[in-house]
Amino acid sequence: MKKLLNDPQDAVKETLEGFGAAHADLVTVHLDPAYVVRAGEPRAGKVGLVSGGGSGHEPLHAGFVGLGMLDAAVPGAVFTSPTPDQIAPAFEAADSGAGVLAIVKNYTGDVLNFETAVELAEIDDRQVATVVVNDDVAVEDSLYTAGRRGVAGTVAVEKIAGAAAERGDDLAAVTAVAQRVIDNVRTMGVALTACTVPHVGKPSFDLTDDEIEIGIGIHGEPGRHKVPMASADEITDQLVAPVVEDLGLASGEEVLLLVNGMGGTPSSELYVVYRRARALLSERGVVVARSLVGNYVTSLEMQGASVTVLRLDPELTELWDAPVHTAALRW
Amino acid sequence: MKKLLNDPQDAVKETLEGFGAAHADLVTVHLDPAYVVRAGEPRAGKVGLVSGGGSGHEPLHAGFVGLGMLDAAVPGAVFTSPTPDQIAPAFEAADSGAGVLAIVKNYTGDVLNFETAVELAEIDDRQVATVVVNDDVAVEDSLYTAGRRGVAGTVAVEKIAGAAAERGDDLAAVTAVAQRVIDNVRTMGVALTACTVPHVGKPSFDLTDDEIEIGIGIHGEPGRHKVPMASADEITDQLVAPVVEDLGLASGEEVLLLVNGMGGTPSSELYVVYRRARALLSERGVVVARSLVGNYVTSLEMQGASVTVLRLDPELTELWDAPVHTAALRW
Repeated sequence: MKKLLNDPQDAVKETLEGFGAAHADLVTVHLDPAYVVRAGEPRAGKVGLVSGGGSGHEPLHAGFVGLGMLDAAVPGAVFTSPTPDQIAPAFEAADSGAGVLAIVKNYTGDVLNFETAVELAEIDDRQVATVVVNDDVAVEDSLYTAGRRGVAGTVAVEKIAGAAAERGDDLAAVTAVAQRVIDNVRTMGVALTACTVPHVGKPSFDLTDDEIEIGIGIHGEPGRHKVPMASADEITDQLVAPVVEDLGLASGEEVLLLVNGMGGTPSSELYVVYRRARALLSERGVVVARSLVGNYVTSLEMQGASVTVLRLDPELTELWDAPVHTAALRW
Repeated sequence: MKKLLNDPQDAVKETLEGFGAAHADLVTVHLDPAYVVRAGEPRAGKVGLVSGGGSGHEPLHAGFVGLGMLDAAVPGAVFTSPTPDQIAPAFEAADSGAGVLAIVKNYTGDVLNFETAVELAEIDDRQVATVVVNDDVAVEDSLYTAGRRGVAGTVAVEKIAGAAAERGDDLAAVTAVAQRVIDNVRTMGVALTACTVPHVGKPSFDLTDDEIEIGIGIHGEPGRHKVPMASADEITDQLVAPVVEDLGLASGEEVLLLVNGMGGTPSSELYVVYRRARALLSERGVVVARSLVGNYVTSLEMQGASVTVLRLDPELTELWDAPVHTAALRW
């Protein structure tokens, strides 16, 4: 295992220390318990947005803390859910009195620990609503989930709900728009290589030099099936088809197309995937109205990519376009 | 070799097609010959900025075309200089009549081909000045250069010269500020793994599981020496020390600290390197006034990182802070 790390047990802490120092204008990092909060006081009347999950998916979630997106992020150990005692103070820090929306990716541990933290918040008379992101069409249940997994579509949920909160929507409205994104976003991914969890020290699964895993999750858990290595176009076809079918996209609809890198894939290859995904959507009469290409929801140094499609409507487009100022997403 | 590509011979073309479609609001992509131009007409009176070089270093240079940075970028084949017949039309497209600054990384092929393109431009009475970026302190000469190589410091040159051009500086002034950045920026890199050029199909050099290459260039060419794998802090020490010494930084000076990923390294590890680099600078009394952490000048899927330090002065800081709106850098 070759990684730019010191003691693997310190990896998350040292990453957060570096992140906090590099982005002190945007965030404040707390280390014990670990959570990342938007710099400054929460704005009175604004709904607070909190997300979190295992580390190893950077820039998710801390990279999305800032204006127009999250108010706090809670990083667990690598590929491990954050604990309720981390999540509860993040809720408190994000709450200006207008309530908090928790955006949770659908993994059993995340869902349980966020639920416990919500119960703790209710004891303090804090109002917390929850949405669960489950955009991965690859598998119905998995090693770590009942139901579908939450993967790269999370970026769209956090961006759009963040914009709704920023413009002053109340908790019910922010929750509703987050759920509308969840209902209209689907993702499918592929792994070319496995990744290695630092404190484990060996790859999470095995792939030979001539096979790839279609429908991979973001923790190295199994996908749909291993298939022989193929061209970018052939692989992209296998990602786009189930996404489009599951969404039931019709000709003339507008979408956001997100091609997300898993961490170790050059951006040049992501644009080759984007090119094909866009062409496939165009063939079906689907209009790619917005695009995002890059590393947003990763699996450490895994090579691979995922394709996410979000069905847009005028309000979702407007919220996507609204200003955002975070470490990893800014316009 | 596992890559998300189709025919390796089409890799650059298909990347450009995807890039152009995803960023049609920012750029126009020409394919034959290949160059990328800022969308819209060049603004009358504004000096045009053009850079280019081999592909495989994305987002450099096309990812930096847009407001406040480059007017055109010229991508060669992977790790291969662009040709004069690509560069000349990019000069033309970038020229509003106020002249063009060519920003060239110091590789023999790049320097020669840009020189030829400048001669072609002069035949057309086009005024083109040139600066050569040579920030890599690792080696004095290398496989592909006489003198030092141009690496990640190029981002700072393009950003700051771009801001000077955007505010209306004339060609002499933009050239002077670009040269001032070059005179005050230094970089040193490390490779943990090699990268594979698509049309070659095998890694550019050999590294065993327990060794790394200090002072690597961005084409897989040799660095200073192979050393045993070490901790992130120990490796960072070996990158920062020669940079600081070469710059002759004194206590109290302000710098920009750029930790650049080589393409295959997770951002979490880059922040661990940033944390240590910043601590080392602080120990010497050097103030990290600005920071940038991410994949900006890459070597395909190589794992590794480089540390760049730019000595700031009030004008360079102001130009760094000026608005930029490109695919890869935006604020």
